[in-house]
Amino acid sequence: MIVLFTDFGLRGPYTGQMKAVLHQMAPGTPIIDLFADAPVGNPKASAYLLAVYATWFPAKTVFLCVIDPGVGGARPAIILEADSRWYVGPGNGLFELVQRRARETRSWDIEWKPAHLSASFHGRDLFAPVAAMLARGEQPPGRPCEDGADRRPDWPDDLCEIVYVDHFGNAMTGVRAAELPPNKACRSRPRAGAREDLQRSAGRRSLLV
Amino acid sequence: MIVLFTDFGLRGPYTGQMKAVLHQMAPGTPIIDLFADAPVGNPKASAYLLAVYATWFPAKTVFLCVIDPGVGGARPAIILEADSRWYVGPGNGLFELVQRRARETRSWDIEWKPAHLSASFHGRDLFAPVAAMLARGEQPPGRPCEDGADRRPDWPDDLCEIVYVDHFGNAMTGVRAAELPPNKACRSRPRAGAREDLQRSAGRRSLLV
Amino acid sequence: MIVLFTDFGLRGPYTGQMKAVLHQMAPGTPIIDLFADAPVGNPKASAYLLAVYATWFPAKTVFLCVIDPGVGGARPAIILEADSRWYVGPGNGLFELVQRRARETRSWDIEWKPAHLSASFHGRDLFAPVAAMLARGEQPPGRPCEDGADRRPDWPDDLCEIVYVDHFGNAMTGVRAAELPPNKACRSRPRAGAREDLQRSAGRRSLLV
Repeated sequence: MIVLFTDFGLRGPYTGQMKAVLHQMAPGTPIIDLFADAPVGNPKASAYLLAVYATWFPAKTVFLCVIDPGVGGARPAIILEADSRWYVGPGNGLFELVQRRARETRSWDIEWKPAHLSASFHGRDLFAPVAAMLARGEQPPGRPCEDGADRRPDWPDDLCEIVYVDHFGNAMTGVRAAELPPNKACRSRPRAGAREDLQRSAGRRSLLV
Repeated sequence: MIVLFTDFGLRGPYTGQMKAVLHQMAPGTPIIDLFADAPVGNPKASAYLLAVYATWFPAKTVFLCVIDPGVGGARPAIILEADSRWYVGPGNGLFELVQRRARETRSWDIEWKPAHLSASFHGRDLFAPVAAMLARGEQPPGRPCEDGADRRPDWPDDLCEIVYVDHFGNAMTGVRAAELPPNKACRSRPRAGAREDLQRSAGRRSLLV
Repeated sequence: MIVLFTDFGLRGPYTGQMKAVLHQMAPGTPIIDLFADAPVGNPKASAYLLAVYATWFPAKTVFLCVIDPGVGGARPAIILEADSRWYVGPGNGLFELVQRRARETRSWDIEWKPAHLSASFHGRDLFAPVAAMLARGEQPPGRPCEDGADRRPDWPDDLCEIVYVDHFGNAMTGVRAAELPPNKACRSRPRAGAREDLQRSAGRRSLLV
């Protein structure tokens, strides 16, 4: 299964072009749209959102993640294996919290290059092909990360910011509820129908309204 | 074929998580997004919308329907078989019009329970797994409904309300055109390109502009 | 692969109904949402947008294209084969630029008729079934176009209009950059993260900010 986590938005051609690459290179692999509306151009807020949702998915899931304001610049291109799940995307901190919270991790700098690499759409030209390779069970096409250019040790373990507001009006923070006193977990009850415990599936409850 | 009919909205992770369950439990089954923007938290308006669109689909289609403001409360969880199509979702009236207009129906209270049932996301944890079972051809995992807790006999056969406004500006009501005098079917002609007879495919014309 | 290019919008049932037809008639064929938000009711602007994006896709791709303000009227229904890709949709000029820029083209007036053809949703009832036939490798169900009713020789080779504004705020015009002096290709640099060279993949650069 390949899971998409991007800030491409719901409209327009970008997600479709990535899926066309995936269907051609990994035929028959299910593709799941998780977030197309992750915090735009904000790898930090996105990192906390991704870390909570990713652990719900089964082993061998490949996360194709593109929140990449520095595309075309010096940021590395990364593969992360964390607790048997794969993550492919820019090494701009987007995987920092996944990596920090995982029990076992390995990471690689992507060395594979496509025949044509656009300056601004690595999601389609670089990350999608690599995600397809991993979904096919191939070895990561890179060399082990050594310089830590993708890490962000200065980011906090929990982020006291709203990182996402869902369709029902629930605001999600980057704070895991386990870090809060129980009686402060929610200032007010989510309204009926609100998915107030979604993030409980990750073993931690980080949603505040 | 599994058809999604929800009020989850287009954004965010909820539809993706449900699809991940479906892909794992019923691999290879096509999943169709019919409505992700059914009337939010409004099973009554949604019931009239669903009843018109569902009959266009072939036999054995499984409708996974989640408009569920009472999730986590006392409302039952239901499987309905109506004219050879399956419906899975909350027993809050959402299937009232499908059931009332069908020639043959059977319904079950869902007895199957997942290992983990969140308080607020039965779509992912309960209804999606049951929809997958039905799509695989398994028997409904429940016992025949007897108490009528899912029925709404007080709801009218036709609802004189706008239940949906589409992308082209066409407003759909819960009134079947067959119930109206012919010269009052439309107060004004839909503009060019409007899909004014979509609901004719259900044998009734219920769209008014 | 079947690629959807429509003005149906992201919401509502229309794209889902078309996909249901495709899944039934061409099982296992990947379906890609390229644009659901092409210029509404504007085949002319859409024609320039389609011409740039289509050439990125591989041979044998079938484009199911519905920008069809004249649905139910006299406009023909068309199949176009252009440089080994297939296009199905209304003959209202939507394929004019694809056809004009291609090296090799053949076109057909669709003669096949469904058992039920709605007055306003040829996308579902006529174009989707024909797209499925082509995706299955069948012969085009029509006769060669002869009268030119689908052509628009008066439309310019490049259209000096904004035809699309993407999620990141980039505005795309119908002008290929090869037609512009190099120093006027962009009045300002797209902001970081903007996909400023997407259309380069078509060999021409037509995006201006």
